Amino acid sequence: MTTIKDVAKKAGVSVATVSRFLNDSGYVSAEAAKAVTAAVEELKYELNPIARSLNTKKSNLIGLILPDITNPFFPELARAVEDVALTYGYTVVLCNSDENPEKEKNYIETLKKKYIAGFIVTSNQLDAPHYANANVPIVALDRAINEKIPTVSSNNKEGAIMGTNALLDRGCQNILFLRGPAELNPANDRWEGFMEAIQQSNAKYLVVTCPFHFTDSQKIVEQVLKENPQIDGIFASSDVSAAGALKAASLVGRHVPNELQIIGFDGVAMGEMLSPGLTTVAQDVYKMGAIATRVLIKRIENEMVEQNFYEVPVKLIIRGTTRSVGE
Amino acid sequence: MTTIKDVAKKAGVSVATVSRFLNDSGYVSAEAAKAVTAAVEELKYELNPIARSLNTKKSNLIGLILPDITNPFFPELARAVEDVALTYGYTVVLCNSDENPEKEKNYIETLKKKYIAGFIVTSNQLDAPHYANANVPIVALDRAINEKIPTVSSNNKEGAIMGTNALLDRGCQNILFLRGPAELNPANDRWEGFMEAIQQSNAKYLVVTCPFHFTDSQKIVEQVLKENPQIDGIFASSDVSAAGALKAASLVGRHVPNELQIIGFDGVAMGEMLSPGLTTVAQDVYKMGAIATRVLIKRIENEMVEQNFYEVPVKLIIRGTTRSVGE
Repeated sequence: MTTIKDVAKKAGVSVATVSRFLNDSGYVSAEAAKAVTAAVEELKYELNPIARSLNTKKSNLIGLILPDITNPFFPELARAVEDVALTYGYTVVLCNSDENPEKEKNYIETLKKKYIAGFIVTSNQLDAPHYANANVPIVALDRAINEKIPTVSSNNKEGAIMGTNALLDRGCQNILFLRGPAELNPANDRWEGFMEAIQQSNAKYLVVTCPFHFTDSQKIVEQVLKENPQIDGIFASSDVSAAGALKAASLVGRHVPNELQIIGFDGVAMGEMLSPGLTTVAQDVYKMGAIATRVLIKRIENEMVEQNFYEVPVKLIIRGTTRSVGE
Repeated sequence: MTTIKDVAKKAGVSVATVSRFLNDSGYVSAEAAKAVTAAVEELKYELNPIARSLNTKKSNLIGLILPDITNPFFPELARAVEDVALTYGYTVVLCNSDENPEKEKNYIETLKKKYIAGFIVTSNQLDAPHYANANVPIVALDRAINEKIPTVSSNNKEGAIMGTNALLDRGCQNILFLRGPAELNPANDRWEGFMEAIQQSNAKYLVVTCPFHFTDSQKIVEQVLKENPQIDGIFASSDVSAAGALKAASLVGRHVPNELQIIGFDGVAMGEMLSPGLTTVAQDVYKMGAIATRVLIKRIENEMVEQNFYEVPVKLIIRGTTRSVGE
C-alpha cells in the first residue's frame, strides 16, 4: 500500500509538506504542490474517505431533515432520497425534527462538524438564520420557498382544484373542506385551489381547519357531520385526515360513497387499505424525493442547477369513497 | 485557536511527530507520546470530529440496515433508533436493503470505510460472512439469532398464542391462520404459537402462507373465503395481511365482526384507521428500537452488555374486528 512517505519521497519533499498540502493546513510552495499532486496521481495514493473529507471539507453524507418519519408521507420520501443518493455514492443521515427549530439548528450544527455535504429539508423554518447561514448546499422539499434555496414541491393548488372538481362532477352540493394547518405552505396552496374551484360553482361549502392527524380529524368531522347533516362531500387536505373523516362517517352512520363522498390528498399506501378504498389526489412523493436528491448532489458537486423551483404534477386516483361521474 | 504547531512546540517535538501520534500513523517514542498527550490536554487541543474519528477509527455514525422504510413496521423503529442515538450524540445513517445480501454487503463495506461505529440490522442474512466478518459492533433487530450478535425481538410465540386464544374465547370454531414467509424467524415463531394454542382446542383450522403485502393477502384471502365459507376467524401474521383480509371480507360480503372476526399482528398505526378498527397483537416497536440502540452504543463504548437476547413483551389491542367475549 502506498503511504504518505512514498508520496513525499517521490515528490522530493518532506512528509510534513505532503500532509500540509493534503490537509490544506499551512503554506506549501506552488512547486511543492505540483510535485505532490503529480506523485499522488502517479502512485495512485488514496487518502481514506475520512481523511479526504477532512481535506475537501466535504463528506458524502447527506442530511435528511424531516418532521417525523412515522408520518406516512415521509417514509416514501426517505426511500427515494436514499435510493438516488446511493447511486451517486452518497449516504443519508436521518434527522427527525418534530418541526422544532432548536432541534433543526442542532442537527445543522452537529452535522456540519462532520462536514456534511448538504441537506434536504422539509421544514417550515426555512427562513430561519440557521438555514440562511448554513453555508452548505440545501434543497427544500414540500415546504416553503426561500428564493435562495431550490425547492421541490407538488403542484398543490392544481391538485386541490382537481379534487374539488372531482366532487362537483360527482354531484356534491354541500362540501366540507378540511383545511390543513395555516402555517404550512402546501396546506395553504390546497386551500387556495379549493376556494378557486368552489367559487366557480354553485355548491355550498364549509371550511374547517383540521390537523394532519387521524384521531383529531375523526373527532372534528364527527362533530361537523352531526351539526351539518346536509354535507354530501368532504375534501380533506391529507389522506390521514380523510381516513379520520371516513371513520367519522361510519360512526355517525353516513354511507360512503352513497350519502357522502370523500377525497383525500397525498396518495399514501394506507389509502388503498381502507374500506372503501380512499379516492385521493396523489403526490408523486418518490419523484419529489428523487428530484430533490439529484438537485442537491448537483449543487454539492458544483454542477449547474437549471432552475430553482421544481413543481411535480399530482394525479387523481379514483377508489371507493367516490361514486362514478353521473351516477 | 490551538493548532497542531502549538502542541508540537509545547511538547518539544516536531509537527510530524504530533501528527504521527494523533493519527496513529507511525513510530513515536514513549517519551514523545507522553509529552504530546500532556500538551494536548494542557492546551485543550481539539481534533475536529472527522480527524478524531480517523484517530480512533470510530465516528459517531450508526448504520441502520432495514428491508424497506416504506413497510409500515419500520418508520417507528427508525424513529426510536434516531431518538435514542441522538441523546447519546450519535447520528443514524439509513440503509434500505430490500433484503438483498449484495446491497447489505455493500453498505457494510462502504460505511466501514467511514469508520461507522456500529450497525443495527434487520435482516435474514445475519449468518452471512459480511456480518460475521464485519469486525464492528452489530445488534440484530426483530430477525434471526446469531449467538455472537445481541438480538432484540418481540415475544412472537407468546403473542401468537395470545391472538389465537382471543379468537377462541370469542367463539371462533373455524380459524384461518395467515402464515408469513417461511424464511422469517418471527413469522415462524408466530406460526408455532398458533399451532400450540389451536391444538389445545377443538377448533378446526387452516394454515395458508401469505406474504406481508396488502394486495397479495387480499387476493389470497378472497379465494380462501370463497372456497371455505365456514371460516369464522382469521389470525394474520401481520397487520398488512390483516388489512388485506378485511378488504377481502368486504369484497365477498362477510360482515366483520358479526360473521368473521379478524386479528392482526404488529400494532402499526394504520390498524386504527381501518373500518372497523383492527384488533391486533401489538409489538412495542419503539421500545425494540430503543433497546437495540442502547445495547449497540454500550457495545461501541466497550461497556458491559448484560445479556445477548432481549425479548420485548407484546400486548393485545382490542378494536372493532373482534366481538366481545361471550357475545
